Amino acid sequence: MGDARRYFDLPSPFPMKRGGQLHQACLAYETWGELSPARDNALLIFTGLSPSAHAASNAADDSPGWWEEMLGVGKYIDTGRWFVICVNTLGSCKGSTGAASIDPASGQPYRLDFPELTLEDAANAAYALVRSLGIEQLACLLGNSMGGMTALAYLALHPGAVRSHISISTAPQAQPFAIAIRSLQREAIRLDPQWNNGHYSDDSYPEAGMSIARKLGVITYRSAMEWVGRFARIRLESDQREEEPFGAEFQIESYLIGHARRFVRNFDPNSYLYLSRASDWFDIGEYGRGGVADALGRIALQHVLVIGVETDILFPLSQQEEIAEGLRGGGAEVEFVALDSPQGHDAFLVDIVRFGAAIAQFLARL
Amino acid sequence: MGDARRYFDLPSPFPMKRGGQLHQACLAYETWGELSPARDNALLIFTGLSPSAHAASNAADDSPGWWEEMLGVGKYIDTGRWFVICVNTLGSCKGSTGAASIDPASGQPYRLDFPELTLEDAANAAYALVRSLGIEQLACLLGNSMGGMTALAYLALHPGAVRSHISISTAPQAQPFAIAIRSLQREAIRLDPQWNNGHYSDDSYPEAGMSIARKLGVITYRSAMEWVGRFARIRLESDQREEEPFGAEFQIESYLIGHARRFVRNFDPNSYLYLSRASDWFDIGEYGRGGVADALGRIALQHVLVIGVETDILFPLSQQEEIAEGLRGGGAEVEFVALDSPQGHDAFLVDIVRFGAAIAQFLARL
Repeated sequence: MGDARRYFDLPSPFPMKRGGQLHQACLAYETWGELSPARDNALLIFTGLSPSAHAASNAADDSPGWWEEMLGVGKYIDTGRWFVICVNTLGSCKGSTGAASIDPASGQPYRLDFPELTLEDAANAAYALVRSLGIEQLACLLGNSMGGMTALAYLALHPGAVRSHISISTAPQAQPFAIAIRSLQREAIRLDPQWNNGHYSDDSYPEAGMSIARKLGVITYRSAMEWVGRFARIRLESDQREEEPFGAEFQIESYLIGHARRFVRNFDPNSYLYLSRASDWFDIGEYGRGGVADALGRIALQHVLVIGVETDILFPLSQQEEIAEGLRGGGAEVEFVALDSPQGHDAFLVDIVRFGAAIAQFLARL
Repeated sequence: MGDARRYFDLPSPFPMKRGGQLHQACLAYETWGELSPARDNALLIFTGLSPSAHAASNAADDSPGWWEEMLGVGKYIDTGRWFVICVNTLGSCKGSTGAASIDPASGQPYRLDFPELTLEDAANAAYALVRSLGIEQLACLLGNSMGGMTALAYLALHPGAVRSHISISTAPQAQPFAIAIRSLQREAIRLDPQWNNGHYSDDSYPEAGMSIARKLGVITYRSAMEWVGRFARIRLESDQREEEPFGAEFQIESYLIGHARRFVRNFDPNSYLYLSRASDWFDIGEYGRGGVADALGRIALQHVLVIGVETDILFPLSQQEEIAEGLRGGGAEVEFVALDSPQGHDAFLVDIVRFGAAIAQFLARL
């Protein structure tokens, strides 16, 4: 398998919302399908916190992407019709410039010298990419989870740049429960002595902190209901149990360990901290005079699909309803879909049949 | 303020469910009110994981207890009528023998040489105490949270020892979501280098791990709904913010810090690990042939009150319903109360007005 990533050089300097600027920064992105001659079939995807731009396999990289079953020729998001772009979020570590990238001013990795990152910066960087591809207006902007917040920032900052919008399991502003979870994830990393104020290396790496952060993520990404059915109280075979005191004994613990192992060395801890805090900071209410509803009501769109999941404890259904109501206030025709998928926040990655059906039906009407 | 604790010497040796035995062990307990000449007005309280036996002020200790507004002369649990006993759970660190106690065999603290602890052991220890007070049958057994599981163990192991039961925000068996949370709390402590396989001291103490464990506890003890109303997105004043990178910035973070500070040095980390794992292990289903419902149906009681809270994510309402249904199967008259208190699992400590009313009405009918 190859590498399908392309790289877009951001305007240099690239100004950041909270101050500072980036020099010689870039965005990694992948595309599927063909841009129509009228350049009116572009669909941009903003991801959650950890995925790369590799949403699905394509000619240059046939490895499965994180939304493999959703995206492709003849699939729910049909790349025979749509020109799909997926970006690796600015500040991430999957090709786009972030805290692990080399700071051209010093020749060393930025680490904590990376400027304060906001989802608005991520939105502005993607907007520059879209313009560079010759696209005046996106046919559709789709955002999942953190990417849904980035999408709202894009809409608020660039009026007229998007015709239709799909908002999935996200938030118009971070609520205290989500802030508390993310703050604790960051604390687990920061308290790991090997984090060393951001100066870790492969040989001295904050593995324990990242493991706790990821496990806490997984706990809040899924649902208690799903786990009762899936794991109940099943014990590990005695040869699978951890020998150390208070080590894993139940299948649910081993499931979390597996998730942590796959993540810990595959995501830069400083990037994680930056993106996590950017999520806490996000508040669409900053773009209006009357809080969230007013700010959303200033966004002009033609068609909107908002999907939420009843078992999502991190981005609860009430926040999806708030987005749907708010965007209706701007005159868009808004469809609100509440799914009873048992997989909680992660359902959009797992319950492809239900999410796919809602998305495909929406796209068919555009 | 004095110390109202009394100490009961457990039979020595005291056998433990999973093997091993304790020598010269004791239980700390406090009492309120007077035992009637017929010895038929005793009410025993099992606490959650962290509280001491000091549920309320009394003659020997006028400091407020953890259930101060619930318990006392003329209060919801009227100690003018009831002889109330509250025990510090076996294995805890508030006077009862636990991992921080001196092992008489070595003259050193047990630490991880303390035998494997179960809630059944805690129930058996309390049963011996009750018998030593000359009480053949408790008028009422009340358990909150972990204490509710201990109470179910008491009921299953000692048929006929209890007439009526109050079950509050607990579980008939640990579900995977709760196991996952507790496993992660234990991991945070175990990964703290200062835990040192249980060999910490006051000078080298697993403060970071205990802080993460407690904060995660608080997050799951309360509810997202309560926090939206209480903290929303309120920022700390600039002089209250933490200066270090990614330090606290929102009120919700400072709230968690406060909770952690009050707990970290006031609870023994090894005891915490033992009690946490005992909660994971508990499964009333072991006492029947057909799982939870069958086991609960074998328990004979006269009157039962089961209280749960809709916003409790750790011990969900569905588990309270399961307890109520199961005990109904044993022939008891069961009242089930579902409260919409916004404080989640902790509501029994906070929403005293609603819990108190339900408890007082139930007790008045006995």
